[in-house]
Amino acid sequence: MELLKETLKAIGPPDEEAKKRAKERLDSLAKPIGSLGKLEEIVIKMAGITGKPHNKIEKKNIVVMCADNGIVAEGVSACPQEFTMILTENMTKGFTGVSVLSEMTNTDLTIVDIGLNGDIDNPKVLNKKINYGTKNFTKGPSMTYDEAVKAIEVGIDIGDSLYSEGYDILGTGELGIGNTTTSAAVLSAFSGLDTDITSGKGAGLTEEQYNFKKNAIKKGLEINKPNKEDPVDVISKVGGFDIAGMCGLFLSAAKNKKPIVIDGFISSAAALCAVRFNPLVKEYIFPSHLSKEPGAVYMSKELGLEPMLNLDMRLGEGSGCPLAFQIIDGALYIMDNMATFEEASIDSEVLIDIREEK
Amino acid sequence: MELLKETLKAIGPPDEEAKKRAKERLDSLAKPIGSLGKLEEIVIKMAGITGKPHNKIEKKNIVVMCADNGIVAEGVSACPQEFTMILTENMTKGFTGVSVLSEMTNTDLTIVDIGLNGDIDNPKVLNKKINYGTKNFTKGPSMTYDEAVKAIEVGIDIGDSLYSEGYDILGTGELGIGNTTTSAAVLSAFSGLDTDITSGKGAGLTEEQYNFKKNAIKKGLEINKPNKEDPVDVISKVGGFDIAGMCGLFLSAAKNKKPIVIDGFISSAAALCAVRFNPLVKEYIFPSHLSKEPGAVYMSKELGLEPMLNLDMRLGEGSGCPLAFQIIDGALYIMDNMATFEEASIDSEVLIDIREEK
Repeated sequence: MELLKETLKAIGPPDEEAKKRAKERLDSLAKPIGSLGKLEEIVIKMAGITGKPHNKIEKKNIVVMCADNGIVAEGVSACPQEFTMILTENMTKGFTGVSVLSEMTNTDLTIVDIGLNGDIDNPKVLNKKINYGTKNFTKGPSMTYDEAVKAIEVGIDIGDSLYSEGYDILGTGELGIGNTTTSAAVLSAFSGLDTDITSGKGAGLTEEQYNFKKNAIKKGLEINKPNKEDPVDVISKVGGFDIAGMCGLFLSAAKNKKPIVIDGFISSAAALCAVRFNPLVKEYIFPSHLSKEPGAVYMSKELGLEPMLNLDMRLGEGSGCPLAFQIIDGALYIMDNMATFEEASIDSEVLIDIREEK
Repeated sequence: MELLKETLKAIGPPDEEAKKRAKERLDSLAKPIGSLGKLEEIVIKMAGITGKPHNKIEKKNIVVMCADNGIVAEGVSACPQEFTMILTENMTKGFTGVSVLSEMTNTDLTIVDIGLNGDIDNPKVLNKKINYGTKNFTKGPSMTYDEAVKAIEVGIDIGDSLYSEGYDILGTGELGIGNTTTSAAVLSAFSGLDTDITSGKGAGLTEEQYNFKKNAIKKGLEINKPNKEDPVDVISKVGGFDIAGMCGLFLSAAKNKKPIVIDGFISSAAALCAVRFNPLVKEYIFPSHLSKEPGAVYMSKELGLEPMLNLDMRLGEGSGCPLAFQIIDGALYIMDNMATFEEASIDSEVLIDIREEK
């Protein structure tokens, strides 16, 4: 509990002065003001995070939290639970979507067993197991309150270590059959939105399985009554170890004043938990893509972060993060390399016309 | 007229067999079917274009068509016409948005004077001038029918040359004060949509200037009565040399069975012209981002191509293309490097569950 408490206490606002300086520089570049849209917002946000108007993201790491979810006993997934273990093993071999995209973008991967329902003896998997999967939340909480705190602290600890090793930015990813169910439950718990809206057909559910999923979430919320004022309570009652771990990563980013990227629906649920601890955490988070998962658009609204990519992806694993890193790279590159009106010798008289957004 | 005719005659459908093979390979990869969304669509579309399931885009070029528009006399732009010349010069110096992003992504730039209202003596600018800007289309056609054909053929010729030089993909860009007005006019001409919907405030118009713009388009359509069944007629009456040139680039891509990327609102208008020559042209075109320009969403619907990026950009120049190239690169990289279910040794019994989208 100490690490979580200290972390929450250490989270502060972004550097408004650095944001102002970044915006001034952007507005001096030879283009209509604001015409680079979100690329400009990225530059300004990054300045607020690091306190410097110019930034680079050279060392990148995606942390993949792997965990099993007891809720699969309710038939909420098209895949058997064993897939979580198999996919985790495959990720160590560089076979999965996020492995391939990380390799392409020169991004390191940190694969974490935070709650797999089995043991993986592989040096490429960091063993931070809290328990062998969560419990079935239709019969009681997913995990104890203490386990939720510990899982969040695993994330904080990993984030703190990576940032102190010199990583400039982290991405968040997960593996866990059943975790669109826990994520939808977390979203419904915080927002009050109906499960018809927050949950979708995941990786190819039948209509029958989809009904199991919606009913499971409804029952979980009724039985456990998560307190939406306390993110630890929400996570422990209807969340998962992966969501808890990623929530810790987001908190670590805010504490360390470093940027972090959301992947899809599940890491968005974790981001939502982190932001509910303290709304300032949002200032350190970049969204990536809008997941194909139907609840994603509501999650995005609840978070107040609009994705930069629209790729209809629903793979998870952190696979959207490498693509977002490239966009962020582009934004920072423009900031460093585009000429100002002065350098481009554009007449300062006519300049007024183009520069003032009317 | 011969080059245009030959080009139109040579345009055929994509290779359905190659698309099928690409889809089979994608469906054999260790992920739920279709879970990589548009990244998979990109791979399949690219296979249809080139006739090969596996592709690479190593040599990339963005062609920037620079031209002036007579319609600026109606006060439709916040910027003086001279900006087109100044920005073209700046582009040769590597100062503009697209120059910087192209440099970052190792993309070459081809800067074309297809109708600047002045002469640029610079070896970095390809002189293909049709005329010193177009006419004010509220008083008659923008250009003659013959000029429109010639401008389209300039684009075809440049596209043909670049593809034969070994470029794997082209991007389309433009510079031309007043060209959101011509683009909105083209969209209204083809779609019948009201100018209130198709036109926006461009690079920072006042309410008064915005009214000038809408009225100018209305008047241009009334006076010239473009025939929406003939794209040459639409371009010549309310279009611009930049739009005509880019239209030629899209036609060249389809003829050469090579991919080409749209940037924002103006290059979308050119793509729409090309697709109205022959709907098959669409099969060779990749969209990039959804422009902040209000008409962009209607343009995207009219074209039937949904952008992959959502960055609120409204700079033009081709600046969205380098970012789209990166996404396309990622998609093709996944196709080449991700493991199949077999390679990943996932049990073929349980595999059925995850592979069949229900």
